[in-house]
Amino acid sequence: MARVNPHYSKLKAGYLFPEIGRRVTAFQSAHPEARIIRLGIGDVVLPLPPSVLTAMHRAVDEMGTDTGFRGYGPEQGYDFLREAIAEHDFRARGCDIEASEIFVSDGSKCDSGNIQELFGTDASIAVPDPVYPVYVDTNVMAGRTGEADPSGRYAGLTYLPGTEENGFRPEPPNQPVDFAYLCFPNNPTGAAADRALLGRWVRWAKENGAILLYDAAYEAYITDPGLPHSIYEIPGARDVAIEFRSFSKTAGFTGTRCAFIVIPKTLQGEAGGTSVSLHAMWNRRHSTKFNGVPYVIQRAAEAVYSDQGRDEVRERIDYYMENAQIIREGLAKLGLRVFGGVHAPYVWVKTPDALSSWDFFDALLSKAHVVGTPGSGFGACGEGYFRLSAFGRRENVEEAVERVRTRL
Amino acid sequence: MARVNPHYSKLKAGYLFPEIGRRVTAFQSAHPEARIIRLGIGDVVLPLPPSVLTAMHRAVDEMGTDTGFRGYGPEQGYDFLREAIAEHDFRARGCDIEASEIFVSDGSKCDSGNIQELFGTDASIAVPDPVYPVYVDTNVMAGRTGEADPSGRYAGLTYLPGTEENGFRPEPPNQPVDFAYLCFPNNPTGAAADRALLGRWVRWAKENGAILLYDAAYEAYITDPGLPHSIYEIPGARDVAIEFRSFSKTAGFTGTRCAFIVIPKTLQGEAGGTSVSLHAMWNRRHSTKFNGVPYVIQRAAEAVYSDQGRDEVRERIDYYMENAQIIREGLAKLGLRVFGGVHAPYVWVKTPDALSSWDFFDALLSKAHVVGTPGSGFGACGEGYFRLSAFGRRENVEEAVERVRTRL
Repeated sequence: MARVNPHYSKLKAGYLFPEIGRRVTAFQSAHPEARIIRLGIGDVVLPLPPSVLTAMHRAVDEMGTDTGFRGYGPEQGYDFLREAIAEHDFRARGCDIEASEIFVSDGSKCDSGNIQELFGTDASIAVPDPVYPVYVDTNVMAGRTGEADPSGRYAGLTYLPGTEENGFRPEPPNQPVDFAYLCFPNNPTGAAADRALLGRWVRWAKENGAILLYDAAYEAYITDPGLPHSIYEIPGARDVAIEFRSFSKTAGFTGTRCAFIVIPKTLQGEAGGTSVSLHAMWNRRHSTKFNGVPYVIQRAAEAVYSDQGRDEVRERIDYYMENAQIIREGLAKLGLRVFGGVHAPYVWVKTPDALSSWDFFDALLSKAHVVGTPGSGFGACGEGYFRLSAFGRRENVEEAVERVRTRL
Repeated sequence: MARVNPHYSKLKAGYLFPEIGRRVTAFQSAHPEARIIRLGIGDVVLPLPPSVLTAMHRAVDEMGTDTGFRGYGPEQGYDFLREAIAEHDFRARGCDIEASEIFVSDGSKCDSGNIQELFGTDASIAVPDPVYPVYVDTNVMAGRTGEADPSGRYAGLTYLPGTEENGFRPEPPNQPVDFAYLCFPNNPTGAAADRALLGRWVRWAKENGAILLYDAAYEAYITDPGLPHSIYEIPGARDVAIEFRSFSKTAGFTGTRCAFIVIPKTLQGEAGGTSVSLHAMWNRRHSTKFNGVPYVIQRAAEAVYSDQGRDEVRERIDYYMENAQIIREGLAKLGLRVFGGVHAPYVWVKTPDALSSWDFFDALLSKAHVVGTPGSGFGACGEGYFRLSAFGRRENVEEAVERVRTRL
């Protein structure tokens, strides 16, 4: 028989969110009358902004005409979108990033899952714990780890514990690694990084020849104007960091699919004793394995940067952050220890009575018919915690908190 | 410095089509008055079908409403689309393929580039020559080859020569391999496979424990009703084959992005002495590294299967195939040896006067201002050949043939 990739068998259980889906489906079949409130997967619920709809309709019309039709676009994305991103997300914040350093993609999950291909299979990796599972799983699949221990930690990875003691803001490790993932504002803990912390990471990366993979998918939720939105606000970051951004949680594109990755041209790695440009490598990968984001979707994303689009995105973020406040304050009032929810749409809750994360998941589902995400699904340090997403309708968020109060 | 993937440096030059783009841009800058006709990249030119436009507008409207908005969809694709595909592309042709064996994606380039991840890094590979460069390049990047020789052939790959002698229809190799790529109707030669040839491939795969990766992106262009459109029309193929399909060349989706891959649940590989389901592996990969195709695009693809959609696609294919006939007959009349263009939108031309493929490319561009694709870009056996695409406006195709007649 054909020899298949032996590393998939190391993966612990299913990917977190499908596993949640399975349990919810099973519960709903057994209790068809239960009205389940989903605060599990971080999925937006508000409709696409009107400015985005208008842009999409216009682009669809163009695609039906001889002169407006677009076939293959540039794999890297259309200039109109790359320029808008460079201007509004970076230059407006003083970051020295040009349009040609931006690669438009169909999602941050894809980008943060694919980026590891640029590194050697023997490259060493640091990863926060807890964190978005895609970083670890894609490296397991590529054979950069050993087997998992009972807590779910894979041999060969350097874990960066995020704990109550360090405010869920890990410092750089003592040993050097080839690349390190960072995610601020953090999914799942909601912790945000200040300039001082990111400065220490950039300095450490320079000193140790490491590359930082900075996931800023939730930067739009930052409320403190003193906190950095991009790693490139830190001097020197152009030489050590790649950044991930997405339209999913800003303009509600989870079902519309558009994101981007920033790879500065100054970023270098090493192969066979030679210095290599990661921008050139990604450009080769992107043009070999990807054919660009649909034209109509890129026009939709462009509209997010219009005056109207930015106002509409702001309204949506405010709505979700009021939800976060309701969850945060509601649960705190019940005596639960809560974190996050201030610079991120996630509230990170310590489970009561030392329950395990999955036991709390099952209790919440069966008693309150509320779906959240078990913290242990994000890493060993997430055990005993639980993530509640603020992406819900107001009335559901309020009812969820009320059900926790009365039924748990 | 961070250790990066050392295999990228083995890649010969840029990916073919960006290299063509560079030469065309350089020529156009030097000769701004030249009206270039592009029959190079196989990119469609006719607008999206009206049925597709209607479906997209409707889906965009839904995305603007509270009840119709869709966030994350199933990574594998919505059931409405998977069911339509299973019914029209497979069951209607007697193929035993169910909807759950279909994974909707954003392109066949992506699928055929990503599929190699399911195999071990030590897996052996057979690949047609000439063929779509993505198959080879993605395996080079993954480290499954050695260095390239001066003809561009990589050490460690088993090449399957497509020549005038075998009608550009390679037979199975003598030695076993873990997986083999096939592409019929072939890009770039236009050769189509009959049932007997595919039967020999399926039998060979069974006997040798190999998996066939069957790229059928051009099946809709087959004109002989006796030829198979899917590998699953061959008995036993469910146990040995994966198939790639796309909406790019049927409904004109090159800039709209939708495709799919079929992985039967009966398909098994081996890892560490254990039998493993490739369907399960791909499902894990797809849900870890991909977040589905935009909802509005999936609704657009669904419309391709409506009665109106199928008529509109048929008209487009007929238009392009009349172009193919004009190119084929026009060049044959000039004494050139031509192949393909009967079951595929590509005409494969022997270069005159023993010119190299790139020399002919440069001559055609500089004298006739016509862009084609050098055969050597598809593999060593393509040297001395040239691909002309039938994806053009009628008047341009006619003028291109006329310019070849009068200027070359």
